Amino acid sequence: MRVADIGEFGLIELLSKELGIPYPPSPDALPRPGLLVDMGDDALVTGRHDAATILTTDTMVAGVHFLPERVSWRDIGWKALAVNVSDIAAMGGEPSIALVTLSLPPEFLIDDAIAIYTGLQEAAMKHAVVIGGGDIVRSPVFSVTVALSGTADLSELGQPRAMTRHAARPGDVVAVTGSLGDSAGGLQLLIEGQSSNSDAVRYLRLRHQRPEPRVQTGRVAVKAGVRCGMDVSDGLAQDLAHIARASDVAIRVDAARVPVSDALREVFSARALGLALTGGEDYELVLVAPAAVIESVRQRSDVAVTEIGEVLPYHEGPRVAVVDEAGRDIPFGEAGWDHFQKR
Amino acid sequence: MRVADIGEFGLIELLSKELGIPYPPSPDALPRPGLLVDMGDDALVTGRHDAATILTTDTMVAGVHFLPERVSWRDIGWKALAVNVSDIAAMGGEPSIALVTLSLPPEFLIDDAIAIYTGLQEAAMKHAVVIGGGDIVRSPVFSVTVALSGTADLSELGQPRAMTRHAARPGDVVAVTGSLGDSAGGLQLLIEGQSSNSDAVRYLRLRHQRPEPRVQTGRVAVKAGVRCGMDVSDGLAQDLAHIARASDVAIRVDAARVPVSDALREVFSARALGLALTGGEDYELVLVAPAAVIESVRQRSDVAVTEIGEVLPYHEGPRVAVVDEAGRDIPFGEAGWDHFQKR
Repeated sequence: MRVADIGEFGLIELLSKELGIPYPPSPDALPRPGLLVDMGDDALVTGRHDAATILTTDTMVAGVHFLPERVSWRDIGWKALAVNVSDIAAMGGEPSIALVTLSLPPEFLIDDAIAIYTGLQEAAMKHAVVIGGGDIVRSPVFSVTVALSGTADLSELGQPRAMTRHAARPGDVVAVTGSLGDSAGGLQLLIEGQSSNSDAVRYLRLRHQRPEPRVQTGRVAVKAGVRCGMDVSDGLAQDLAHIARASDVAIRVDAARVPVSDALREVFSARALGLALTGGEDYELVLVAPAAVIESVRQRSDVAVTEIGEVLPYHEGPRVAVVDEAGRDIPFGEAGWDHFQKR
Repeated sequence: MRVADIGEFGLIELLSKELGIPYPPSPDALPRPGLLVDMGDDALVTGRHDAATILTTDTMVAGVHFLPERVSWRDIGWKALAVNVSDIAAMGGEPSIALVTLSLPPEFLIDDAIAIYTGLQEAAMKHAVVIGGGDIVRSPVFSVTVALSGTADLSELGQPRAMTRHAARPGDVVAVTGSLGDSAGGLQLLIEGQSSNSDAVRYLRLRHQRPEPRVQTGRVAVKAGVRCGMDVSDGLAQDLAHIARASDVAIRVDAARVPVSDALREVFSARALGLALTGGEDYELVLVAPAAVIESVRQRSDVAVTEIGEVLPYHEGPRVAVVDEAGRDIPFGEAGWDHFQKR
């Protein structure tokens, strides 16, 4: 069955069922916890709350951000939510409510639309996010847009706290969560149509298709006093350059300390470091703070936190340098992802 | 110059300039009022605030929701923001922060992208909305998605108040703001390529291209005690049916009282009433409340508020009836807009 067969309202009804709520809502239906007005009205209304709000949005377009013939719609749903949760994690916040916009060709299969919602809801449940409806529109090309709100951590004095890109200071250390390059490795395997089902190959594909946003570490970090951080979405080198420019500093990375998974080394051997430095979509966190602060985050984080470099004053030349154990520059380019420009 | 020539970051820089803020942000740049973290980071962070949050999103796809060859990109920008502001107005809330996602083909003209932002910013300034960035993605087809947050009115006891679709009660009267059908009339003229430049034709086109969300009336209404309302986006008959079903009531509309503009009567004569009953995209408000409450809104609203019918208990048959002066049913169908289904 296709979208054109049941129309927008028929599809909304099915997708609402996937979220476990009736549509159209009955007059007696209670809104979900945290909501005063649930789906099915002009807009969503939360209960009264005293906080700072975090807002972010991210879109995935078929054929641009993913290959529909190579990945499952359920994974697309997961990832569409997860990448937004990662942006909230990058500020040290807690995600709360998501609006989802599906742009669907009329011939899009109902079952695929439901699979997207299954994946969205899986990621939402994991991070205590409420999916609060959104919009479904006809379009010649599939895309999914998530707009996610969350709340910022408050200090003991009640001031909102968030990690930004412009708060790196010379003397700070640079750390990252997890391992880098796995997602780019997984994408490479998907593009090549790699049929091996080894543990390493499956791990890399999973890292590409089901990224795990580092919400817990982000919250630990901001509470511990980390004021500078972001998530690694465009590739480590490019993302560190964002921080270096925004903070007007330089960053030096020790190549030997960049965390690379055994799986990435096994499958990509010598290319692993390059993928770790420039591959996009890892959704790990970069944290920049004095060494003692990073150490306290490391002890409390539920995922590995690894120091990879340091912040230096900026004079001239490149903002980001990657050096080998002898201190020599490793060329890597600053090119990350820009979907519009030719490579 | 085209998007592919300057890339995503080049375009973001130009569009930020259109909003009057530097990009990439300098370390010394202060965030705009109401924000703790402005554009250029992973997410936007507001200052701490004590309120209930309203969230909504709406998308316009080229060729589906508008005809790019017939309307200006500046008007597209205005409308993309205005339709979201209207959803907040429909809850009686105050809009605050917008995230904008542009899906652009690589050959899209930079000047057109800037014109969209000019229109977005015009609508944003009018309603004190801060445009807080968003996402720019490559796509074979143009679309613009706005996700808008706002705040709900609080009662004297501090409880959030919002107008919903499920709060109509038998005995309430049904009222609408402004006049209905103008937007559908304007669309008809655009489709026909109507070249006349009479006042009436220009007025109808403007009503289609630059809808004016009724924020002031929505706020007056919710303060006056109106608990049921929505905006007219799919056509009066279909939207009243949403209210009637959600509230489990019936609604009777007196055709003679439905406000129709002189311009619509002049250009469409006998068809004017049909357009007013079923035409979409008016973005006027429907308000449902006891007569005395509606009267107090009418006195305070900066746009006309007209009683058009009443709420009745529901037994069986159609939820919404439109009757002439002799009380006879006027057939109109409940069909409104469903972009997926054939007419």
